[in-house]
Amino acid sequence: MSDIEIARAARKLPIGEIGQRLGIEPADLSPYGHDKAKIGAAFLQSLTDLPDGKLILVTAINPTPAGEGKTTTTVGLVDGLNRIGAKAVVCVREPSLGPCFGVKGGAAGGGRAQVVPMEDINLHFTGDFHAITSAHNLLAAMIDNHIYWGNEQDLDLRRIAWRRVVDMNDRALRDMVGALGGVRNGFPRETGFDITVASEVMAILCLARDLADLEERLGQIVIGYRRDKTPVHARDIKAHQAMAVLLKEAIQPNLVQTLENNPAFVHGGPFANIAHGCNSVVATKAALKLADYVVTEAGFGADLGAEKFFDIKCRKAGLRPAAAVIVATVRALKMNGGVARAELGREDVAALVRGAVNLGRHVENVGSFGVPVIVAINHFLSDTDAEIAALKEYTSGLGVEAVLCRHWAEGGAGIEELAQKVKAMADSGKADFQPIYPDDMPLFAKIETVAKQIYRAGSVTADRAVLDQLAQFEAMGYGQLPVCIAKTQYSFSTDPTLLGAPEGHEVHVREVRLSAGAGFIVAITGDIMTMPGLPRKPAAETIRLDEQGFVEGLF
Amino acid sequence: MSDIEIARAARKLPIGEIGQRLGIEPADLSPYGHDKAKIGAAFLQSLTDLPDGKLILVTAINPTPAGEGKTTTTVGLVDGLNRIGAKAVVCVREPSLGPCFGVKGGAAGGGRAQVVPMEDINLHFTGDFHAITSAHNLLAAMIDNHIYWGNEQDLDLRRIAWRRVVDMNDRALRDMVGALGGVRNGFPRETGFDITVASEVMAILCLARDLADLEERLGQIVIGYRRDKTPVHARDIKAHQAMAVLLKEAIQPNLVQTLENNPAFVHGGPFANIAHGCNSVVATKAALKLADYVVTEAGFGADLGAEKFFDIKCRKAGLRPAAAVIVATVRALKMNGGVARAELGREDVAALVRGAVNLGRHVENVGSFGVPVIVAINHFLSDTDAEIAALKEYTSGLGVEAVLCRHWAEGGAGIEELAQKVKAMADSGKADFQPIYPDDMPLFAKIETVAKQIYRAGSVTADRAVLDQLAQFEAMGYGQLPVCIAKTQYSFSTDPTLLGAPEGHEVHVREVRLSAGAGFIVAITGDIMTMPGLPRKPAAETIRLDEQGFVEGLF
Repeated sequence: MSDIEIARAARKLPIGEIGQRLGIEPADLSPYGHDKAKIGAAFLQSLTDLPDGKLILVTAINPTPAGEGKTTTTVGLVDGLNRIGAKAVVCVREPSLGPCFGVKGGAAGGGRAQVVPMEDINLHFTGDFHAITSAHNLLAAMIDNHIYWGNEQDLDLRRIAWRRVVDMNDRALRDMVGALGGVRNGFPRETGFDITVASEVMAILCLARDLADLEERLGQIVIGYRRDKTPVHARDIKAHQAMAVLLKEAIQPNLVQTLENNPAFVHGGPFANIAHGCNSVVATKAALKLADYVVTEAGFGADLGAEKFFDIKCRKAGLRPAAAVIVATVRALKMNGGVARAELGREDVAALVRGAVNLGRHVENVGSFGVPVIVAINHFLSDTDAEIAALKEYTSGLGVEAVLCRHWAEGGAGIEELAQKVKAMADSGKADFQPIYPDDMPLFAKIETVAKQIYRAGSVTADRAVLDQLAQFEAMGYGQLPVCIAKTQYSFSTDPTLLGAPEGHEVHVREVRLSAGAGFIVAITGDIMTMPGLPRKPAAETIRLDEQGFVEGLF
Repeated sequence: MSDIEIARAARKLPIGEIGQRLGIEPADLSPYGHDKAKIGAAFLQSLTDLPDGKLILVTAINPTPAGEGKTTTTVGLVDGLNRIGAKAVVCVREPSLGPCFGVKGGAAGGGRAQVVPMEDINLHFTGDFHAITSAHNLLAAMIDNHIYWGNEQDLDLRRIAWRRVVDMNDRALRDMVGALGGVRNGFPRETGFDITVASEVMAILCLARDLADLEERLGQIVIGYRRDKTPVHARDIKAHQAMAVLLKEAIQPNLVQTLENNPAFVHGGPFANIAHGCNSVVATKAALKLADYVVTEAGFGADLGAEKFFDIKCRKAGLRPAAAVIVATVRALKMNGGVARAELGREDVAALVRGAVNLGRHVENVGSFGVPVIVAINHFLSDTDAEIAALKEYTSGLGVEAVLCRHWAEGGAGIEELAQKVKAMADSGKADFQPIYPDDMPLFAKIETVAKQIYRAGSVTADRAVLDQLAQFEAMGYGQLPVCIAKTQYSFSTDPTLLGAPEGHEVHVREVRLSAGAGFIVAITGDIMTMPGLPRKPAAETIRLDEQGFVEGLF
């Protein structure tokens, strides 16, 4: 059975019942159909004085085409925890609609460990991304309109930092010249579109405490610079309050359920390179009030996702993770050990052990944040006993345990052992979380710290213009912000072909950007795309409705 | 009290109760919050064999800055009909989000005759326009992607007819050059964005019978032409089925309520110039099965809106309207009679009678479709008894009745007299609807028929290129389609300053476009904007959330 067939066969409970189990009354739950709901702001406010549950991060080795199953493991672990009697909820990101029509298909877990309704979650869901797109583009329209009617703020047309967004893979919109066609259309200038998940509004929504904080942060967005190089903010053209109006439902967490009817918060979805790649702070904090264990994930591998989760999200939101799970697969580690994709079906213990250094590095890195670590081996049918034994032996040499998990095939029942051990680890009180650099470190030193301690770079370089820009950000008062490094997800280095555990490489910072509303400085290394394209044969060509009105082609 | 204050004070019933009153079970109603819902396709299918209620059109004189209150009267009339014991429902369009942030504020009726929840309806509502935007832009992305990967269909880059859309007033996007930036971004070409309500996908959604018909029509969209000038359709690049997936909820009618808790279908919102300007056929047909009287409206004045309602929507959907209400105000007629806006507060019977020729012309025109007509005088506090008496005398000279309506101030209680008379008219069986031209008339002759019989033009002209284009559309097999004339809404002529009832003017057709999926030929006269701009002081600057989280600045 395909993921979508399993999802469609799910025996979903009415979303009101899922809410009830968390103590949410029907009036506090705003339904979207019968299986999705948003949780009202007043209810969230009422939780403030309750104690927090324990926060568990699921992260992974560097992604390979072989697949790791990070969301699948996150969802499975919650089903496993509930099976062993622990009250646990899922907190994951919303998938972006655009990429579903490219190569991706869908993203809501897989096999017997999914959140449902899978089709809705992958398409319009509760409209959050559409609201973010609207708010972002309202600001863009107001910027060009401001210039059109006299440019009172004296915005430098060459230094406008705000582009537009669309939730679609559309390479033709990456670079454009707009406002053509003469006087009545404005002043022509170069600009372009990013995909919605790359919007600073997305990052803001995911880091804001509440609606008031969201509005404040929207006002702080730097939209560009004046001729005298001073910054112009969204509030200077009075855009932030109307943007907040457009986001008043989007900031409310979405409640859905796993295949085993456990509560899942699916909310927010910032990019994990130029943004921090975690679900919303609002959802995580609400979940911590409503459950004893909250299992969340961070984007890409632990070098990008976990680092940003710790240094940006946890630091800024005051979250203290109690345990971390690193997901690995035998197949992916064999690829890291040099096995070609087509050969992954063949047993190769030596390659596995060679590739396991990638896992080892992540284990060490995550541990350096003061969070106890366990490894989840996401089982594939082609894995052999010898390979699994070798992997367990490797991790035990690192002083961490690796647990074989069969949640993809068996659901929560296949991951009870991991659930028991994660619960014990979270309950142990061993965690002593701390970010990897202090707030008051200079910006470039923060970049160096992450690059050297996490990526294991030998040197970090940047052109004079980039260093000057960082100095300018510090002069503007943004020196205390954390850094958000955009780097390829496929390697610890900036070269996507360097698998395993490379070290001593050079990390070159080619550009830095200010996300003043979100509250971080983006440092771009290598070739980072903020607007994907569609492949030669896009998934859209085969996505369709069948005779019963069900969606085919999402997987 | 402002409209938004009245709307906020409304005692709304849970939407399930509104549905129940129409015989819709909870399982067939998909809630969006507690006061909005979509009606499921299976339920709609089950209604097929029920008899139809009576369809009543609300249209108006040409709009002036003085305001007419067409939606207000549509809503008020339904409240009035229910008060006198008739089972009636509202069918109106969804407002577009973009213009709310410009000058418009909001559009869901006014005073004591509104549909609620007003803020939601004016903002994201149930996400229909976002879904239409996504489907439209997916096709656009697939077109540029098709070209990028080899252009198997041999699309002529100069003859691509499909632009992109956004639901925002953004003049900088009207004309652009996209796909700049080198090889990896595609082939640069001139293009641009329209506002979502101008999308052919919007028109298709509003004219489709059901989801299968929608998909079929999406496939028929002509996206451009090959080098050999043959048309390329959306289905040729396999985009239509994925577009239908994105629209599967959007095509379901939205149920909300009036301030007096009567059911209202608010669904679809095509432009009333380059599209047909009516709510969806799906909603109208569902409403006719569920109620005895369905009151609907058409965009702009009767010259544009009612003509398109009759010649496009009713013709194609097989609807047979039973009565028509033409809304007029003393103020607007005085403006037509030459009174300046600042002077409208002063009694001026002579100007009223001079301006009433505008109303007279519309009365005659609407009657020519075989539909009995009544005039609703939408009362303003500044109207004098003498003015109202003069207006009634004028219409009685035309053989039609004019009824003073106080629904804005009093709700349904203020419009009972009109309700009684409209009900009697609809029940009388006097209507004998027929479109104004037959399907098999040549396209240019159809344009001439509307221009001469409705606009009262003396001559209709077009350049050779336009006539050639029409001949080409006929050769392609589209000669049987109705025409959709885009003309200024402010005058019967193409000159927006010619008020009253001008005749003998020239109508010049400067461009024609094929909407093969929607099923009409657009003929553009004068200067029609498909992407509005924001004003110097956009409403967005004052739209905000107050301390209680309520939206301020929509009105």
